[in-house]
Amino acid sequence: MLIVQKYGGSSVANAERIRRVARRVTDVRAEGHDVVVVVSAMGDTTDDLIHLVKEITDYPPERELDMLLSTGEQVSIALLAMAIKDLEKPVISLTGAQVGIMTDNVHTKAKILNVNTSRLQNELEQGNIIVVAGFQGVNNVNDITTLGRGGSDTTAVALAVALKADLCEIYTDVDGVYTADPRLVPDARKLDAVSYDEMLELAHLGAVVLHPRSVELAMQYGLPLHVRSSFNHNLGTIVKEAAGMEKSLLVTGVAYDLDVARIGLFNVFDKPGIAYKLFKTLADERVNVDMIIQSAMRDDRNDIAFTCSQGDLKRALEVVEKLQPELGSSGYTSDSGVAKISIIGAGMVSNPGVASLMFEAIYEQGINLEMISTSEVKISCIIKADEARKAVRALHKKFNLAKGIDC
Amino acid sequence: MLIVQKYGGSSVANAERIRRVARRVTDVRAEGHDVVVVVSAMGDTTDDLIHLVKEITDYPPERELDMLLSTGEQVSIALLAMAIKDLEKPVISLTGAQVGIMTDNVHTKAKILNVNTSRLQNELEQGNIIVVAGFQGVNNVNDITTLGRGGSDTTAVALAVALKADLCEIYTDVDGVYTADPRLVPDARKLDAVSYDEMLELAHLGAVVLHPRSVELAMQYGLPLHVRSSFNHNLGTIVKEAAGMEKSLLVTGVAYDLDVARIGLFNVFDKPGIAYKLFKTLADERVNVDMIIQSAMRDDRNDIAFTCSQGDLKRALEVVEKLQPELGSSGYTSDSGVAKISIIGAGMVSNPGVASLMFEAIYEQGINLEMISTSEVKISCIIKADEARKAVRALHKKFNLAKGIDC
Repeated sequence: MLIVQKYGGSSVANAERIRRVARRVTDVRAEGHDVVVVVSAMGDTTDDLIHLVKEITDYPPERELDMLLSTGEQVSIALLAMAIKDLEKPVISLTGAQVGIMTDNVHTKAKILNVNTSRLQNELEQGNIIVVAGFQGVNNVNDITTLGRGGSDTTAVALAVALKADLCEIYTDVDGVYTADPRLVPDARKLDAVSYDEMLELAHLGAVVLHPRSVELAMQYGLPLHVRSSFNHNLGTIVKEAAGMEKSLLVTGVAYDLDVARIGLFNVFDKPGIAYKLFKTLADERVNVDMIIQSAMRDDRNDIAFTCSQGDLKRALEVVEKLQPELGSSGYTSDSGVAKISIIGAGMVSNPGVASLMFEAIYEQGINLEMISTSEVKISCIIKADEARKAVRALHKKFNLAKGIDC
Repeated sequence: MLIVQKYGGSSVANAERIRRVARRVTDVRAEGHDVVVVVSAMGDTTDDLIHLVKEITDYPPERELDMLLSTGEQVSIALLAMAIKDLEKPVISLTGAQVGIMTDNVHTKAKILNVNTSRLQNELEQGNIIVVAGFQGVNNVNDITTLGRGGSDTTAVALAVALKADLCEIYTDVDGVYTADPRLVPDARKLDAVSYDEMLELAHLGAVVLHPRSVELAMQYGLPLHVRSSFNHNLGTIVKEAAGMEKSLLVTGVAYDLDVARIGLFNVFDKPGIAYKLFKTLADERVNVDMIIQSAMRDDRNDIAFTCSQGDLKRALEVVEKLQPELGSSGYTSDSGVAKISIIGAGMVSNPGVASLMFEAIYEQGINLEMISTSEVKISCIIKADEARKAVRALHKKFNLAKGIDC
């Protein structure tokens, strides 16, 4: 078999953990499998580098940020390759550029366009374990790009797809995907399987187990992912097509995201092109807008509200300020202290009662809803950030997620 | 003018120093010059990385060492580029691979074969200041190589040669090349100019101002180097052809090297091929042999002694042990605690009296000579390491180097 494994930053945070990952990798190799290992930067490396940047400039060019941050994974792959070699297995480390992970030119948030597998194939044929730097690629002018935080998951899935791997294992510091964050909800239950759709919503919603783009890519190519812990040998959670899974459950899990900022515009013109103008400009400034809500207030005026990450808030407000005359808005508000709470479940699509159950649970806690947004497999609410934990516990209980039965 | 500048690790050791280098670079740019800047890894980065390696393995593969250590310079170039951009000058950072510094395959000690200038030319035409990672290159299979410690000097000279630069400035933490180490000899004098030959011997002998390969390369292409301090604007020392320089002086400077180990073999066969066998095998094991002395003891037997760096001693002794039967030696000794003391001067070639003055100075200090070796422009002696400082001071005095007149 050809197995692609991905280890996150906490799994390679120090020399001892790197040696442990090396043993895991060589054990799999000893069973006769080909192994490609994708690793992230060691523990706090990225934060340390960002700290250095802040001592130098408030406006680092994004190309240079990529040049800087990509060194974190390069350190990891070199050290892991040394540890594997120390166990007397043939091994070679490769950067994103050396692998041939071709991306677009959007520095710090690049998308993979293509993976050139010739060097990988060649190294596998020579019997090497391959250790690949996650999170990074190279654009068409040979400049280093990065895929955004958590991009190592995407690297692993892209390599598994390109190499037609038999298995793609995502190692992390938890046992798998849970019905809610186990640190928050003590009786949260590990799911044996979850659908791509549900995982996609979970990842987007801040359960932060898998990078959403990696799930999209896996779904697109039908590649099952095994999310499991690098600290034990327990089976984790399989992410795959919905068929034959815990479909009957209305709600599969509860997710929350504390990195949310909310912006509301009052009384914008009600005419074609207004939303386009606003969200196109935000996209051009690379503000990742998440929820969008528009509601008619009067005949010729609308309110528009949207959320983004707290890090994007400043840029978003600059856009809003600049566009005010064009949008005709009478003013705007913003709040950097909100959270998004969501319930996810492939079974909820045909059951309108789920939403009211959710609102009931939140109401019972005396929590006010600031925004609501729904999709086929999830319902999300914006509430005050300091009430997020209470809301998650209440929802987990309301939907009986600890027992895995319908409410 | 096109100016290539090189800044060592101490010049970019922290954010504040990086910002200072950025100001220096942009000042030169503001005068209308094109600038290519070569930087080393920040301060202790390389040592920190080596420390990590030691926690993982005693036998790191050299390819992976290069993969690891090259990240140090990559961090420096990204941060310096950010600092320059913060001063509102157009700038781009490039790794050795991106520049196209092609090397051979000898990892950790690679030699530059060729510099592809197309990207450099292109970035200069676009008005960019270019910040290049020193110390590193790329081999013919796109693997990262490093040029050995101090290799950033070689990078700077190679770029200056390839770009036909008007000036190559090597910034360091001292004001230039001195008649002796100023920390050891308080009245040591800064030299305004020094010849390539003398600088080559000075560098080889541990004055550690310039990497010897950079001097060889500069000499080969007749490129003058300006060695100066990054902490002030004083003129430093020009390294150039001997013509018109302080030739009349018998002795230009005193150098010492404390990183020396000595190995002596007794009674080896006196027949053709013995020295070849020994030193070929040492070279194959990448032991850098420095001084070699052979002397006939009896009709059919010789003693052979040589020196290498202390880090190479273990490998050298393994070679000697293995070859003993073939060499016929009756035994060997080694000493890791010796130093090499040398006097350098282009004027000494035709003056045999210099050697005896040197030996006199050393004898007056009661120091024993363990090995002696001479060349056209230098005389070197191996003595006990703990007597090195005393010997340097005595020689500086004996040759009146503080005053710059002949003795």
